[in-house]
Amino acid sequence: MFNHIEGMNYPPREFQETGFQNIIKIIRAYPLATLISVHNNKLYTSHIPLIYYKDKQFPFGKLAGHIDIHNPQLNALQKGTAVNIIFHGPDSYISPSLFKADHLPTWNYIKVHIEGKPREIKSKDTLRQSLLKMTESLEANTSGYMLSENHPTMNKLLDYIVGFEIEITSWEGKFKLSQNKPTEEQDMAIQSMTVENKKDISALVKSILKDFQRSS
Amino acid sequence: MFNHIEGMNYPPREFQETGFQNIIKIIRAYPLATLISVHNNKLYTSHIPLIYYKDKQFPFGKLAGHIDIHNPQLNALQKGTAVNIIFHGPDSYISPSLFKADHLPTWNYIKVHIEGKPREIKSKDTLRQSLLKMTESLEANTSGYMLSENHPTMNKLLDYIVGFEIEITSWEGKFKLSQNKPTEEQDMAIQSMTVENKKDISALVKSILKDFQRSS
Repeated sequence: MFNHIEGMNYPPREFQETGFQNIIKIIRAYPLATLISVHNNKLYTSHIPLIYYKDKQFPFGKLAGHIDIHNPQLNALQKGTAVNIIFHGPDSYISPSLFKADHLPTWNYIKVHIEGKPREIKSKDTLRQSLLKMTESLEANTSGYMLSENHPTMNKLLDYIVGFEIEITSWEGKFKLSQNKPTEEQDMAIQSMTVENKKDISALVKSILKDFQRSS
Repeated sequence: MFNHIEGMNYPPREFQETGFQNIIKIIRAYPLATLISVHNNKLYTSHIPLIYYKDKQFPFGKLAGHIDIHNPQLNALQKGTAVNIIFHGPDSYISPSLFKADHLPTWNYIKVHIEGKPREIKSKDTLRQSLLKMTESLEANTSGYMLSENHPTMNKLLDYIVGFEIEITSWEGKFKLSQNKPTEEQDMAIQSMTVENKKDISALVKSILKDFQRSS
């Protein structure tokens, strides 16, 4: 079941996730993907939400999303160049002060790496359906808002985006969660990560937006 | 002051951060970097914390960090191949249900992109000092733990890691924060992102670790 991405068997095996169910769990909880293409020796990266779907054609299923027609990565995707995708689960600094033992500082994280083959969605109807399904999926745990097939802005948007389906060809879970430590210490590391991830970000974001408005 | 990374002038200008102070703010608040190298036409990525330092030699300063000697990206870094680095600030789905106006669903995020030139830290003493300074920086807002120069595990570790300094050659802020919306709606989007980012992650992480232990 473990699918080795060439040149990426790092971190060591103890930090590698081997169950595809956990890979899907992270993709669904953290859908904002870093989409990476290397095309004509040039690197392109975009940040877009991708939705996971099972598909009888592909053993590991597929991801669906869309990008703006002005995004410089478009050509690489349309040409079908293989993509590397990273989904970012939670992460946090793990201070030695948490433990009785004299550990070194470290950083824990959950990252999912996917390799896939993109294929353009050429039909406007299929793209529209893809947007409706994406919204349904993203709204599942929030307000339950439903995007209407006749939403006028959406129907204008269809001319300014290109939709893709990406067949998952291989995957790797880089789940660094203190698995090399005793269970008690693993629990303390999870607790620390949980607290860290509850930090109030509003002051930071507001200060950035304030500077932003001033400088632009 | 705006430093265009070639082929990356996307998203549109209204979502691009132009103040370097805000770039540093995000690097300091979210130090876990995605380090990307393209070397001999092959893509390498690692997730490591990087610390920002001012440096008289470099107008935009430098980043410092280290990787394991078994990391397949090591060679690209030692050869000095240019790196692309992404720092991941907060992000969240923005539901149309937040607004009175009939907006489309979107995803807001704060991402910092850096291009840089890596240079290996060859002296063990300099590397040791780099680890001490990194710990001091990461502990600034936590327990105040101090790493000792004589920490026995750290001194053993020095043979199994390679340290780097990365000169920042260009940078770009992809700060998508509803800046194209009225201030009132920007505030609602920040509030939504803040709530979303306070989600309790412990159940998710525990369920993953449980499966993990079972399957390995």
